[in-house]
Amino acid sequence: MSIKITGTGSYIPNVITRNADFHQHEFFNTDGSTFPHDNETTIKKFRSITGIEERRYLEDNLNTSEIAVIAAQKAIEASGTDPESLDYIIVAHNYGDVKFNCLQSDTVPSIATRVKHQLRIKNPSCVGYDVLFGCPGWIEGVIQAQAFIKAGMAKKCLVIGAEALSRVVDKHDRDSMIFSDGAGATVVENSEETGGVLAHESATYAYNEANYIYFGKSNNAEAPQDVRYIKMNGRKIYEFALMNVPKAMKSCLEKSGKSIKDLKKIFIHQANEKMDDAIIKRFYKLHGMDVPQNVTPMTIKELGNSSVATVPTLLDLVVNGEIENQELEKGDIIIFASVGAGMNINAIVYEY
Amino acid sequence: MSIKITGTGSYIPNVITRNADFHQHEFFNTDGSTFPHDNETTIKKFRSITGIEERRYLEDNLNTSEIAVIAAQKAIEASGTDPESLDYIIVAHNYGDVKFNCLQSDTVPSIATRVKHQLRIKNPSCVGYDVLFGCPGWIEGVIQAQAFIKAGMAKKCLVIGAEALSRVVDKHDRDSMIFSDGAGATVVENSEETGGVLAHESATYAYNEANYIYFGKSNNAEAPQDVRYIKMNGRKIYEFALMNVPKAMKSCLEKSGKSIKDLKKIFIHQANEKMDDAIIKRFYKLHGMDVPQNVTPMTIKELGNSSVATVPTLLDLVVNGEIENQELEKGDIIIFASVGAGMNINAIVYEY
Repeated sequence: MSIKITGTGSYIPNVITRNADFHQHEFFNTDGSTFPHDNETTIKKFRSITGIEERRYLEDNLNTSEIAVIAAQKAIEASGTDPESLDYIIVAHNYGDVKFNCLQSDTVPSIATRVKHQLRIKNPSCVGYDVLFGCPGWIEGVIQAQAFIKAGMAKKCLVIGAEALSRVVDKHDRDSMIFSDGAGATVVENSEETGGVLAHESATYAYNEANYIYFGKSNNAEAPQDVRYIKMNGRKIYEFALMNVPKAMKSCLEKSGKSIKDLKKIFIHQANEKMDDAIIKRFYKLHGMDVPQNVTPMTIKELGNSSVATVPTLLDLVVNGEIENQELEKGDIIIFASVGAGMNINAIVYEY
Repeated sequence: MSIKITGTGSYIPNVITRNADFHQHEFFNTDGSTFPHDNETTIKKFRSITGIEERRYLEDNLNTSEIAVIAAQKAIEASGTDPESLDYIIVAHNYGDVKFNCLQSDTVPSIATRVKHQLRIKNPSCVGYDVLFGCPGWIEGVIQAQAFIKAGMAKKCLVIGAEALSRVVDKHDRDSMIFSDGAGATVVENSEETGGVLAHESATYAYNEANYIYFGKSNNAEAPQDVRYIKMNGRKIYEFALMNVPKAMKSCLEKSGKSIKDLKKIFIHQANEKMDDAIIKRFYKLHGMDVPQNVTPMTIKELGNSSVATVPTLLDLVVNGEIENQELEKGDIIIFASVGAGMNINAIVYEY
């Protein structure tokens, strides 16, 4: 018995926002002060750290649950699954549906219910719920699907990561340029084949780290002070991630019984290019190795950081041959790894 | 091996709001029209249907995550558990932390992270996540804890239901009088004893039912139309629940291998007294029986409907002998059952 991803799908929004589109923004520091340089310098610096040149925003008339549905339809089709045979619909997100130009998150009914409704699934035994776990939510959803399958409580689960961070960014915060929107979906199921999920690792660091990513007021002191946006302490996150993500990946690889030399690809949360590079470098250094070529497919340059959606979207693009010099073959050992609000870290070692 | 609840705790807010406190409210129908009778008549009718005389609201300076912590501390103490030994913290809610007089839900970081932070748990392997599953969220959390334990992924989980519906009610909607605030927590763990969770049932009805409970605008046509509140279609919910909850409970009891005659107590979501009575009556009718005396402990009269918190709070009160003529003895067969936004239904048959 194994637990395999039998179909993938994604939705990449059509609205492209380029770095140049931020030239007219009024950016402030968290203390409300202005920057000693112009926006061009700010954006250049931003580009050199994050690797982001453009990002995708949801069309104004769409919501997170709707793009989750599109990604789900593709994953279901790719897997050849009858939607009525799904035992679970697990949707990872962090903000629910936030309508364009609205402040409120809408999570009742759950996004999973909305997805099930729009997929026109009738079977009541297909249970839909949402999981909130920061950016690592999609990986955590796969880990939960694994639990249901191992426990004999499910055979087939639809696991989705969908987010529209453009709806919760503070336009006066430089960090807003990191965030983007998207959805990725996978069908995870019990399989007679070998391979699939070999090991997982999951952790929550909340003692000192709980508020590294939080919901806070605008950097613009003149903006309404009771309206909150996604906020992060970039420096602390960088140090935290570099310290803990490589270790978690290493521990997961050890549990899987596979060697670093077997490893073909790492699908890492597209958080920030410099941070991702540093994590991968340290991960290989822990094994006394340099980073092999083409081991990490990356999309952050064009797609930004769409939270829970980055990893399943990346997988879907590679599976479909849409990233240059990146392909997967049956039997390849890969790692999914993520870090985000919580602070949560997780990883899965998977035999494709 | 069995999966047992080894500790319970709850937090019942101190602010008592009596039906009389609604006499001065301006109530409207969903179409914005006024009622042909005065508030006293409206409230009398409300009382006769829901059984609610008073409800508890969160103190203005508290949030959902903070009362979750208080309930959790009691459950941990009751179970004699070392908090550092918890493998999971699962928090069921639907709206996150909504500060008093604020419109936005705050779910980043997750409520589970906030709870873990405030419990001062250091162990990173204690994984915290939130589950959104409507009112049946706490029961679903226990079902998920069961999956982790059965799959060998956990030994001990803290499962919490916490909600502050007073922060999301429309004061111009009669239904607002149903809703209340509270938190209930349980430690669920792998045990050498017999009993514990014997069977579970879980279902999502989203085909026609997805929007029976939803987030909608005020009944007051003069209120800001982009601000949304918890809303429900009471008549449809009543019909739906009466049709499906007794069947789900019966199916769960059958799976458990226990007879209706073994059943000592039903801990049913405190949704609405008339609806709960009708569900229990039909459940027994499906077994050709009348409802035995004292089989359903009820708190709705004084505590209202606190969503995910009602069932674990009810259990905690009965365990601690705080409800008259209600007690549990080792070996008692009980059912937990709930219905709510999704529309989700679930049940657990449990040997105490």
